Amino acid sequence: MKNNCAIILAAGEGTRMKTSKPKVLAEVLFKPMLDWVVDRTRQSGVEDICVVTGHLSESIVTHLDEGIETIMQHERLGTGHAVMQAKDFIARHGDANVLVLAGDAPLVDAASISSALKLHKRALNAATVISAKVENPFGYGRILRDRDGALLRIVEERDATDAQKAITEVNSGAYWFKAQALLTALEQLQTAHKMSPPGKSKEYYLTDTIAILAKLNLDVTAFDARTSHVVLGANDRVQLAALNEIARREELNRHMLNGVSIPCADGIIIGPDVEIGADTLILPGSILRGKVTVGTGCTIGPNALIENSFVGNGVCLNATQCAESSVADGAQIGPFVRIRPGSTIGACTRIGNFVEIKNANVGAETKIAHLSYIGDADVVQDVNIGCGCATVNYTGKEKHRTVIKDGAFIGCNTNLIAPVTIGKDAYTAAGSTVTEDVPDNALAIARARQVNKKDWVSTKKPYKRQNV
Amino acid sequence: MKNNCAIILAAGEGTRMKTSKPKVLAEVLFKPMLDWVVDRTRQSGVEDICVVTGHLSESIVTHLDEGIETIMQHERLGTGHAVMQAKDFIARHGDANVLVLAGDAPLVDAASISSALKLHKRALNAATVISAKVENPFGYGRILRDRDGALLRIVEERDATDAQKAITEVNSGAYWFKAQALLTALEQLQTAHKMSPPGKSKEYYLTDTIAILAKLNLDVTAFDARTSHVVLGANDRVQLAALNEIARREELNRHMLNGVSIPCADGIIIGPDVEIGADTLILPGSILRGKVTVGTGCTIGPNALIENSFVGNGVCLNATQCAESSVADGAQIGPFVRIRPGSTIGACTRIGNFVEIKNANVGAETKIAHLSYIGDADVVQDVNIGCGCATVNYTGKEKHRTVIKDGAFIGCNTNLIAPVTIGKDAYTAAGSTVTEDVPDNALAIARARQVNKKDWVSTKKPYKRQNV
Amino acid sequence: MKNNCAIILAAGEGTRMKTSKPKVLAEVLFKPMLDWVVDRTRQSGVEDICVVTGHLSESIVTHLDEGIETIMQHERLGTGHAVMQAKDFIARHGDANVLVLAGDAPLVDAASISSALKLHKRALNAATVISAKVENPFGYGRILRDRDGALLRIVEERDATDAQKAITEVNSGAYWFKAQALLTALEQLQTAHKMSPPGKSKEYYLTDTIAILAKLNLDVTAFDARTSHVVLGANDRVQLAALNEIARREELNRHMLNGVSIPCADGIIIGPDVEIGADTLILPGSILRGKVTVGTGCTIGPNALIENSFVGNGVCLNATQCAESSVADGAQIGPFVRIRPGSTIGACTRIGNFVEIKNANVGAETKIAHLSYIGDADVVQDVNIGCGCATVNYTGKEKHRTVIKDGAFIGCNTNLIAPVTIGKDAYTAAGSTVTEDVPDNALAIARARQVNKKDWVSTKKPYKRQNV
Repeated sequence: MKNNCAIILAAGEGTRMKTSKPKVLAEVLFKPMLDWVVDRTRQSGVEDICVVTGHLSESIVTHLDEGIETIMQHERLGTGHAVMQAKDFIARHGDANVLVLAGDAPLVDAASISSALKLHKRALNAATVISAKVENPFGYGRILRDRDGALLRIVEERDATDAQKAITEVNSGAYWFKAQALLTALEQLQTAHKMSPPGKSKEYYLTDTIAILAKLNLDVTAFDARTSHVVLGANDRVQLAALNEIARREELNRHMLNGVSIPCADGIIIGPDVEIGADTLILPGSILRGKVTVGTGCTIGPNALIENSFVGNGVCLNATQCAESSVADGAQIGPFVRIRPGSTIGACTRIGNFVEIKNANVGAETKIAHLSYIGDADVVQDVNIGCGCATVNYTGKEKHRTVIKDGAFIGCNTNLIAPVTIGKDAYTAAGSTVTEDVPDNALAIARARQVNKKDWVSTKKPYKRQNV
Repeated sequence: MKNNCAIILAAGEGTRMKTSKPKVLAEVLFKPMLDWVVDRTRQSGVEDICVVTGHLSESIVTHLDEGIETIMQHERLGTGHAVMQAKDFIARHGDANVLVLAGDAPLVDAASISSALKLHKRALNAATVISAKVENPFGYGRILRDRDGALLRIVEERDATDAQKAITEVNSGAYWFKAQALLTALEQLQTAHKMSPPGKSKEYYLTDTIAILAKLNLDVTAFDARTSHVVLGANDRVQLAALNEIARREELNRHMLNGVSIPCADGIIIGPDVEIGADTLILPGSILRGKVTVGTGCTIGPNALIENSFVGNGVCLNATQCAESSVADGAQIGPFVRIRPGSTIGACTRIGNFVEIKNANVGAETKIAHLSYIGDADVVQDVNIGCGCATVNYTGKEKHRTVIKDGAFIGCNTNLIAPVTIGKDAYTAAGSTVTEDVPDNALAIARARQVNKKDWVSTKKPYKRQNV
Repeated sequence: MKNNCAIILAAGEGTRMKTSKPKVLAEVLFKPMLDWVVDRTRQSGVEDICVVTGHLSESIVTHLDEGIETIMQHERLGTGHAVMQAKDFIARHGDANVLVLAGDAPLVDAASISSALKLHKRALNAATVISAKVENPFGYGRILRDRDGALLRIVEERDATDAQKAITEVNSGAYWFKAQALLTALEQLQTAHKMSPPGKSKEYYLTDTIAILAKLNLDVTAFDARTSHVVLGANDRVQLAALNEIARREELNRHMLNGVSIPCADGIIIGPDVEIGADTLILPGSILRGKVTVGTGCTIGPNALIENSFVGNGVCLNATQCAESSVADGAQIGPFVRIRPGSTIGACTRIGNFVEIKNANVGAETKIAHLSYIGDADVVQDVNIGCGCATVNYTGKEKHRTVIKDGAFIGCNTNLIAPVTIGKDAYTAAGSTVTEDVPDNALAIARARQVNKKDWVSTKKPYKRQNV
């Protein structure tokens, strides 16, 4: 089979975004727009991708994964000129089809891309433009058809007559080309246009390739994607917010139809790479970003922030922030808990308020109920850690690990000075600073005896009661 | 007076909800739909209730309170068949009226039920259907009237002609019947319908009872409830979210008209059994669920989660989770505080960040400003508890209580090993672990003396500064 | 130049607000409506302001800053009567123009006020009413114009004919008058109206001054502000919520157009006196109120609450509440942190979960990673504070300060009993209570030695494992 390829245009500056980053790295649901376009391209079955960079090229090249080619457009002379830079890339796919996509139109979907390709191949087209009807076509290239509905050409806003401006079918900026036809059209592309904006170099419009190919009596078609999402881009942060809202609502609906309960969607942002099981309840203010899997029957939120993590079934994550970690079935966590990267939380473990877990393995059936920090630690299982405990993992120079074995009981306000091991079923007395290993079954105690100084308060009067 | 009764249909499976729970237990504002219907029935003055169960009958029976009868519909043969199962229940109310309600239409309101009954009795009706006009009637049974507006019959979506489908007045699924008339109609009910869905047994439609009664020259009427809410149900989680949003907005409006300030309603969910005083401010992300009473002039939120609790006047609950507890006037709590079940917080008490209170009585004018856990404790009043204190209530085997008397001052990072009593005006030195009772006015101290080892750092170099 | 002045009407009771506070102190984006009106007046260049008070006059007088005159309207006899009370104030500005504003219409904008004045002066008007077209004019005074568009008079809802009620151009309650013309009109003002509400004294309508001046052949004009916001007021909390939402959306749009990213605006409230730099990301549930400045490239939220604070560039404030403090560039703070008034956080400092800073200076490059309270302290720079540390600043009688010098390392669960100084590069051992100064480079240690009691657990059986 012929090896189709894709060119993604990512050179734009996006001045109105007022950003020091490349425009195509602006995020929708915490995922750069360019990554949406790359992922959708791959989902539609196209693997060979060339990204045309320009403004802040370096950051884009660094951002992309290694499998993607990049080519620099040194002068910004329009979309046609951008595609010209990829001439060699196109030539290498000379007997296949080339998908051209805008790097700042993240909501183009794989189904539309694939359906357009099917039509493109069946109709033996030289070019197939993906179009959509929109309510307000202002700013978009209009799709001009003849009386029979055949595509004639695309006319840009600035070149359109009033009659043409009334057309609501617009260009998405996504196209399929036969590679050879695209190369031919690019060679004939010219800059002459009625009205170039003052102070701007004349531009080569990729849209003009359609008219060129039509004049050569090659078949060109507009494929109506029947969803305005394919055309949507963002030129400023208000439009970026609108894209986010559309994508957000789509994701929420997808999960609800899968059986996820969302009684109030306010403040809930679920990224495109998140899977959630049925009968899970998501409460307001919860953000799930990056690659996240959540099982069935969980309660997530309110105000959970979960990032690149795995969460089993029947888990509760109440007002908990959890990053790059995994939480096993039945764990009850929160409120006000933070699980930092590199942690695994065992099944049915209970982690209560004001607890931080960092780079630690916490085994099943363990209880860490309050106000503790467990970092760089291996807690085997069925351990009870009292209130206010700390693994003292940092000497100022190095970090060391703490090991707490099966069934140990760590008394309140215990300091565990790592490296240290607490034995199986061992016990530490509340208020102890434990510097040496504690054998299995032993009690470690390190504290001073209590002395009561009688009448000390009436004599010394160290403080005054407020209401006496 | 005749003893009216109600039959609530709760047998449905709700496949599109994709849930392992009965459909009627899906929640609107954290209250199962069935409980909404039961409460509204009782609010309208009807006490004798029979719930017809089917799918996952057991969970529903367990869920309902004891005053409610249940009857099992073993085969799912339609709403008419469901009501037939309650024949004995109806017969027991033979000289009264029977209200039939759908267990998955939670927003039917007591006023509509009562008004419909008034009409039903005044008109000496055999049956009175509660109807409403909706924008999009698809899926609902249409109300067919003759030219004079008299009710003829109800036609289901699947049996409706195109002309009938255009009718926007629809059946809510809520009806009043004379008990005897209902029994008569049920006996005549048949399954013959134009189009039963393939693969489904033929069903008995309760809606057909209307035509049957009309043919018997008995009076039947449709009562237009003038609110589309009476007809709304949920077949999937998207519709369930829509029900939640409608109910949520209604509750918010109710409270705002009562003088509650809600500058931004995002993420605020207030359940139907919550009362809030005037001049109280609710900030975003706050959830009040179950039975909650909040006084006047409070500030609730942002991000408060209050469940089955009593909150007095002038209380602040900032980013605080509070369950099954009561908070007296003027208490200032939060941010980042958790009050667990069984706690009472006294007037004008201040509880600051990262404090957990569990099953404890905290008396008036007490200050627990930071990072402490007070569990299974009785704190009399005017007590000052320093930073990092813990009541060590759990030995691993049993839980014990801590008593802190009037005016005591608990130094920072004190461990109180329960059972233990701190006397009136007593004082504990910071960093002490207190294992024995402290007399009134005494100072308890349990810590080692400080030793400064000179030049230890330059000699041992235990850590390296980062910026030197 | 003539010294224009403004009269703001603030006497109303606002019964439907159900509040114990004056209506004009009800808040929009946490700023009292009256303050919005005062600020907008000043922004339009008018400095001499007289506020007419009535209901709960005292609270308003106390609330206003000293530069503003107030005058009491003892009887509530309408807007005309209210302005009459300020006769002397008007007379003192006899050769200038008088702006009259409603204290409960907070969204009138300075540009509309200024443009209306320009027209007022150019046209040599006696009076210029600021008007706007609204979708639903119910309740507003209608603007009556002759065939040429010239203003005739304003007719109140209760006096309007059906034809007049259909007019959608309405009075905003904001006017410019020539001072002398206003005085003349006030003298001729009468109470006679077709329909005064029953039980209410007859009122003097300020709106009638327009007809009076027109009859005197003086020029009167309606200035169409082209935004319905100028007319919007709030009579109950539902309307107040609507005002908040309009103002909230306006502020969010302003910041987004400045380059601020807001992927989901839910629960985000940004007050009118907040400035935010480009490339800053605001996450859901974040409230910025009072005077707040945030730099560029920050991440604020989720659930940040920032009040009257300065935040530099590149700062992260995750689930952090920060009041009356400043945070320098590059500081990484949160989640679950509280910064209380009077604190300064140095550049690139890291403050982690469950940390409270109060009235403290925390120098650059310092790390306070977890579960600590730093209050009334001066932490110089490059200090590392371990987990669970507390500055013991309160003896019960007085508060004392703690000083921690350059490069010190405070071990976990250290209590620092203030007043105390930890020297440069000094070190405290974990679990120590430090009561005396620690010299530079010294180690302070104050803890008991650890003893391991062998087989104590198997002998004493102090607790039972749950799963053995």
